[in-house]
Amino acid sequence: MDQVNRQVILISRPTREITAENFRLVERAVPQPEDGQISVRNHFLSLDPYMRLRIAGLGDGETLPIGAVVIGATVGVVMRSRDVDFSPGDHVLASFGWQEYGVGYAKDMRKLTEPRISLTAHLGCAGMPGVTAWMGLHRILGIKPADKLIVSAASGAVGGVAGQLAKEAGLHVFGVAGGPEKCRYVVEELGFDGCLDYKAPDFIECLKQSTPSGVDAYFDNVGGSLLDAVLARMNKFGRIAVCGRMADFDGDIKPMLNPGLISDKRLRIEGFGVAEQKGWREALSQLTERVADGRLKGRESIAYGLENAPEAFVGMLRGHNLGKQLVKLI
Amino acid sequence: MDQVNRQVILISRPTREITAENFRLVERAVPQPEDGQISVRNHFLSLDPYMRLRIAGLGDGETLPIGAVVIGATVGVVMRSRDVDFSPGDHVLASFGWQEYGVGYAKDMRKLTEPRISLTAHLGCAGMPGVTAWMGLHRILGIKPADKLIVSAASGAVGGVAGQLAKEAGLHVFGVAGGPEKCRYVVEELGFDGCLDYKAPDFIECLKQSTPSGVDAYFDNVGGSLLDAVLARMNKFGRIAVCGRMADFDGDIKPMLNPGLISDKRLRIEGFGVAEQKGWREALSQLTERVADGRLKGRESIAYGLENAPEAFVGMLRGHNLGKQLVKLI
Repeated sequence: MDQVNRQVILISRPTREITAENFRLVERAVPQPEDGQISVRNHFLSLDPYMRLRIAGLGDGETLPIGAVVIGATVGVVMRSRDVDFSPGDHVLASFGWQEYGVGYAKDMRKLTEPRISLTAHLGCAGMPGVTAWMGLHRILGIKPADKLIVSAASGAVGGVAGQLAKEAGLHVFGVAGGPEKCRYVVEELGFDGCLDYKAPDFIECLKQSTPSGVDAYFDNVGGSLLDAVLARMNKFGRIAVCGRMADFDGDIKPMLNPGLISDKRLRIEGFGVAEQKGWREALSQLTERVADGRLKGRESIAYGLENAPEAFVGMLRGHNLGKQLVKLI
Repeated sequence: MDQVNRQVILISRPTREITAENFRLVERAVPQPEDGQISVRNHFLSLDPYMRLRIAGLGDGETLPIGAVVIGATVGVVMRSRDVDFSPGDHVLASFGWQEYGVGYAKDMRKLTEPRISLTAHLGCAGMPGVTAWMGLHRILGIKPADKLIVSAASGAVGGVAGQLAKEAGLHVFGVAGGPEKCRYVVEELGFDGCLDYKAPDFIECLKQSTPSGVDAYFDNVGGSLLDAVLARMNKFGRIAVCGRMADFDGDIKPMLNPGLISDKRLRIEGFGVAEQKGWREALSQLTERVADGRLKGRESIAYGLENAPEAFVGMLRGHNLGKQLVKLI
């Protein structure tokens, strides 16, 4: 009998906030690998905000069709291989999405051979989120040691790495996160110079007090009213890397209240996506070294079982997680 | 008896739209030049949108104090010189502002010795507005021949030069201007590929029709709802040079409705001011050659007499001028 593969598919497209009811768990047979393919038992699924854009049909990627398995990066173990470079038992990084097994061409996967870091680090600090942070800092913001940097969603997978790398580079780094627990984590565990709670009633005043000499660079994962607040604090010739727009995920598109500041302050605001950036090899190498020697860290929020992926995803978009959100599949 | 110098000073700061009542004409004696100084009879005064920002205290320059002579570039003729490099009769470019005479240090002025171009060209196509266009195209947008470019305020002093230089560089260039007369001028005299009337009721639809393959670069002199309209048409990795924010000059700060497009489309939006840009010498040299050989042109709207400067300035901000707005002082 064929192996049963549990999958989560999108069954309806949310018009406002996404809920677990937009997804459904289904069961299908695991196909046999063809020539050049491998079959993989997925151990961990990565949940990332960009999936929300693909579900909404926003952003630049293809819109996820109704009925399709939800996309996502996975790490797992090879079961069968019809490719010369892979053997059963190998660890692989792939994009199998929300399912327990995956079959695909070996050339589309990366064998994980670094013994010093965990399997899940390849989905976080030493994976796509880490590379996103690295590209934002080095390719978009062009950080310099004298910069005062702000990082939003500072306790998240991308923001946490961005702040740690910037601190190592000598910058003064302030995070913004939701709630005192996250702020404590950002300062005490990740080593930011400070972290502001955007949910606090006196947030705008705190931001002002905390940036007496202004802000030179802003790593923006959020957009919305937080972008307005930081824009007001930017120094002349400041740079903003727009990595995400989580503030719009409730279905309300938020305006930028005073875009005139872009010309007044000679700001450069640049949107970017990690997929199209060059320099992945260098970035991954630097990140892996830092994870291995402990310079770079980040907590993981782990949901157990594929059936809990929808709730974990919705929770992540609402900020319930701390650090990298994963689903453990086995 | 001392020579009488008529000046226009700012007597009140507008909270909404500026009017001629915010200014007053006064008479003062022309001082004698000291050692190293020259005295100049101003022939033309340049009126430029940036003055509105300085009056409002927006932007990055110093706020113009109440009671001060309004700032501005001037061209004139030396009357007396106490500097070895200047002689009576020399033409000079200076920043004497809204007054008929000026006395200042020779080192702060530029002697105009190019016989092939008019005195007023140094305030327009071959002056600060022309250099602004050049910097926006080359330093901020980084134009390439395959780009589809949009220029707002296309019939103005900056926009007109931007479009002509971009056409010469091989780009496909569409202008946006207010009203059919300006649009005709932009196409028929300046040689843009087309020009859209933002006051037309079907403007948004026309913009869409006119940009079937999107927009790669936007030279923005206006901001406001026009920026929203162009943002919706930008291609992935598009660039926007934010040169001005004329849409805000009525005192209402206009939002950007969907800043999420910056991340969705990986846009780069950059504000700039010509004063801080490097490469003036190269830009002025290129512009002067093009004005001299007729490749670069632009109409002038001329008001006569310093007493009419306020009305001309207010009219320019409301779009009553075509091309470069000047005041002839003699």
